[in-house]
Amino acid sequence: MAITNKIENFHMEVNQAFLDKAQALAPSLITTEIRPAGAVKIVSCGQDYAAQETGQGFAQSQPLGRGDSLCLDFGDHRVGYVSFNLTSVGSPPDAPACLRLRFGEIPYELTVGLSDYRGEISSSWIQEELIHVDILPAQIRLPRRYAFRYLELVVIDTSPKYQVVVGDVVCTAVTSADRAAVPALNLGDPELLALDRVSLKTMEDCMQSVFEDGPKRDRRLWLGDLRLQAQTNYVTFRNNDLVKRCLYLFAGLTQNEGRVGACLFMEPRPQVDDTALFDYALFFVSCLHDYYAATGDRETLAELFPTAERQLELALRELDGRGIVTDRDTWWCFLDWGEGLNKQAGAQAILIYTLKQGTAMAEWLGKADRAAALRTAAGQASQAALDCLWDGAQGFFVSGAERQLSWISQVWFALAKVLDPGETVRLLQRVMAQKPGIPLVTPYAYHHLIEALMENGLREQAVAAMKGYWGEMIREGADTFWELFDTNDRYASPYGCRAVNSFCHAWSSTPAYFIRTYLNP
Amino acid sequence: MAITNKIENFHMEVNQAFLDKAQALAPSLITTEIRPAGAVKIVSCGQDYAAQETGQGFAQSQPLGRGDSLCLDFGDHRVGYVSFNLTSVGSPPDAPACLRLRFGEIPYELTVGLSDYRGEISSSWIQEELIHVDILPAQIRLPRRYAFRYLELVVIDTSPKYQVVVGDVVCTAVTSADRAAVPALNLGDPELLALDRVSLKTMEDCMQSVFEDGPKRDRRLWLGDLRLQAQTNYVTFRNNDLVKRCLYLFAGLTQNEGRVGACLFMEPRPQVDDTALFDYALFFVSCLHDYYAATGDRETLAELFPTAERQLELALRELDGRGIVTDRDTWWCFLDWGEGLNKQAGAQAILIYTLKQGTAMAEWLGKADRAAALRTAAGQASQAALDCLWDGAQGFFVSGAERQLSWISQVWFALAKVLDPGETVRLLQRVMAQKPGIPLVTPYAYHHLIEALMENGLREQAVAAMKGYWGEMIREGADTFWELFDTNDRYASPYGCRAVNSFCHAWSSTPAYFIRTYLNP
Repeated sequence: MAITNKIENFHMEVNQAFLDKAQALAPSLITTEIRPAGAVKIVSCGQDYAAQETGQGFAQSQPLGRGDSLCLDFGDHRVGYVSFNLTSVGSPPDAPACLRLRFGEIPYELTVGLSDYRGEISSSWIQEELIHVDILPAQIRLPRRYAFRYLELVVIDTSPKYQVVVGDVVCTAVTSADRAAVPALNLGDPELLALDRVSLKTMEDCMQSVFEDGPKRDRRLWLGDLRLQAQTNYVTFRNNDLVKRCLYLFAGLTQNEGRVGACLFMEPRPQVDDTALFDYALFFVSCLHDYYAATGDRETLAELFPTAERQLELALRELDGRGIVTDRDTWWCFLDWGEGLNKQAGAQAILIYTLKQGTAMAEWLGKADRAAALRTAAGQASQAALDCLWDGAQGFFVSGAERQLSWISQVWFALAKVLDPGETVRLLQRVMAQKPGIPLVTPYAYHHLIEALMENGLREQAVAAMKGYWGEMIREGADTFWELFDTNDRYASPYGCRAVNSFCHAWSSTPAYFIRTYLNP
Repeated sequence: MAITNKIENFHMEVNQAFLDKAQALAPSLITTEIRPAGAVKIVSCGQDYAAQETGQGFAQSQPLGRGDSLCLDFGDHRVGYVSFNLTSVGSPPDAPACLRLRFGEIPYELTVGLSDYRGEISSSWIQEELIHVDILPAQIRLPRRYAFRYLELVVIDTSPKYQVVVGDVVCTAVTSADRAAVPALNLGDPELLALDRVSLKTMEDCMQSVFEDGPKRDRRLWLGDLRLQAQTNYVTFRNNDLVKRCLYLFAGLTQNEGRVGACLFMEPRPQVDDTALFDYALFFVSCLHDYYAATGDRETLAELFPTAERQLELALRELDGRGIVTDRDTWWCFLDWGEGLNKQAGAQAILIYTLKQGTAMAEWLGKADRAAALRTAAGQASQAALDCLWDGAQGFFVSGAERQLSWISQVWFALAKVLDPGETVRLLQRVMAQKPGIPLVTPYAYHHLIEALMENGLREQAVAAMKGYWGEMIREGADTFWELFDTNDRYASPYGCRAVNSFCHAWSSTPAYFIRTYLNP
């Protein structure tokens, strides 16, 4: 995520008991020492760059002097801390060694330096360091965590009297995901197996102290991402305590009026960001609903249900006289990164979707009055949507004053089950056939399409779409699934520079969820 | 120093007992916390740059975002470690903060970045750092030692949602020089007092674990510099153990055949460099001679005399059939940085100068045979010089096959007392009047001119030359005396870029020696 809003007169409300519960669930990180698979050369390749194997493994570099460089391939996407030895050959070092290090999840990132960057979001996301080593030999331990597969090391200078040798390069990879907990698959389809494998790697690298959205950027706990990570987690790494921890964090650190924030920071202390998103706040309801469905943890459900209910109350306050969520000019609801996308219809559908989940939770808790009230609200919101947003002539839901057509509006109304099942199937078939208006652009939005297709028995289309979209990322060389993938514009970035796109992004890891939920025999 | 040579088949010979003695004398460093005097603005000023006061003290910065910068003036030259606090204002930091720091002994250095540098010696001497701060607020402690007066901090990026504030900036200055040990001066001349003050500051900043040549560059123990530092030390900081330590280090870590190296490194372990210089090796003799004359430490004299004698033996091996030091095309003897300077005559004079000091030490130790042998060698070398290098028609010593004229040849023959006293005075007067051949370029060479003038009763000319040369550095804004100062070319650098010149250099700190030895009543 990157575009942001800021709620007015923001303050954080802390529920210390919830926060304490969350902190007690902090996971131990599993560390693995990984050495480079070999040295590579980054070469231009059409519009992109590729890492060309040099045919050598890597134990230590040749002696390197001013301007020499070395590019290492760690064999797969890695999240962790890097250390190496730097020794000298020649005369005793009579000047410091100065090195530039650049880390890339993909080869292209190694070609974009901090000083070349012209993107819109912070250049501080470029994983580039400049280090001086005054005393050689030295054991260098870089203090920051990086997300990368490739490491380029350029010797800015040594001196004419000595050169440096780089050796013993190690990435201490970190994750809270335990591979041993992942159930085996009973599938033969190599495409699906590949999708599952890359999903797991993506999940693994995003599972840290919390579920991060991306280990390179933003390295943060976003509610929208958490919802999909949690769903995938239940059928893969099954670290349910990590989901529970995140739920307690969101409930323990709210914004004004008990609103659940769009994201949390964990350092230097846990705190909620001042960004509020209509859909993300409601996804607290979904996360809690899904958590209970997966775990049966009634105590947590009971303790956190009031927080969930509060999000529904706050959302219902946003309805206009017609019962439709009030549209806004600001970045108030996420849905997807589609250019010019109007959020009103999607927001309405998500409100209905989560009112229904709230109803279910109230029923599970035996709160009949609350269940009835929420069911009524869901019914009214659905009817308002049918009255005001459904365009019968076109056979699509429209959004905003300009009655915008978009895929995501249809997808969310399908998920919210506002039409009857047969109508929903036909709606989805029309979407696939007619491609109405603004397309889906993120894997996050594609997830919801696949989910709608799967839920409505359109399994064949779902699998085809999944293989077409995520499968294409793998064919493009993805080690982990990307934050952004536009099949019509492979090099797109909403940030003005692809180098700061996240190439390991939690919201893209859901093929494993679909495969294990709907396709594993 | 920067141009280097490398002796063939170099190996280090270690005298562990000497090394142990040296290490037992390692000084404690005195630390002082220094805060910035204020914020300044670096402005173009003719061919140079100046630090313009902003009229504000400095407690903390304004909030700084992408591209904003801050320049702090620490009020005087500093050698030490820098720490500061970085806090954020605005929303919780949603991206790392990335800062570029640049340290300068003079304002000009802040205008030369690592990527702009086109000098010949290593760009790693440019005091520039790039840091990423992932978690705010942060207490930043830079691990490297810097030599500087000015610190420029540029915010490469934060994010649109927050800015950083820089506060609590502290330089923990380090030195092994104790100001309390410096005798008071009984002088009224403000020019001389200023020369003494700047000399002391230069000495102080170069006195660390050993006598360094320059705390910015090379941060190393060079014998040529040590000789002048020691002489100045005896009449200022009087840290005689630090001289003793350096003598034992040079004697304990020699090159092939017991040759004393031109310089030593202290980290990661004490070691001698592979650079050999004819004059510098002989200055071990001078340093020991001067140390005994200043301290009367007979035990050290006796223990290290063999090392001194060995340097004389090795030097005498270099005499040709005429008894003249063999000239070479390589960088084999230092003397000065003069363009095209031939070293033969200066080397011959230094050999005579040190043979005489060797003779004196042999006498002090009651080694009559050795004294006689050294006296004879000195006499023969002097006669050879008069026969082969003295040009009676011109009234100057000439150097090399092309009979080159230079100031430094005359200066060193004056110091070696090869002519009788009256002739030496007239030689020096001719030098000052006729300015023969290659001029002096470094303060190190000027030192030897002043010393020759002082020793030969030409005090008035000595003081005028000192006030003209070092005084001009002060008028140019020097806080500490510079490694290089060419009155005909203020912006000269032998390194292709003035930013890597050292602006606090030990060999330039001798006005205090002259003032306290020859001028203090």
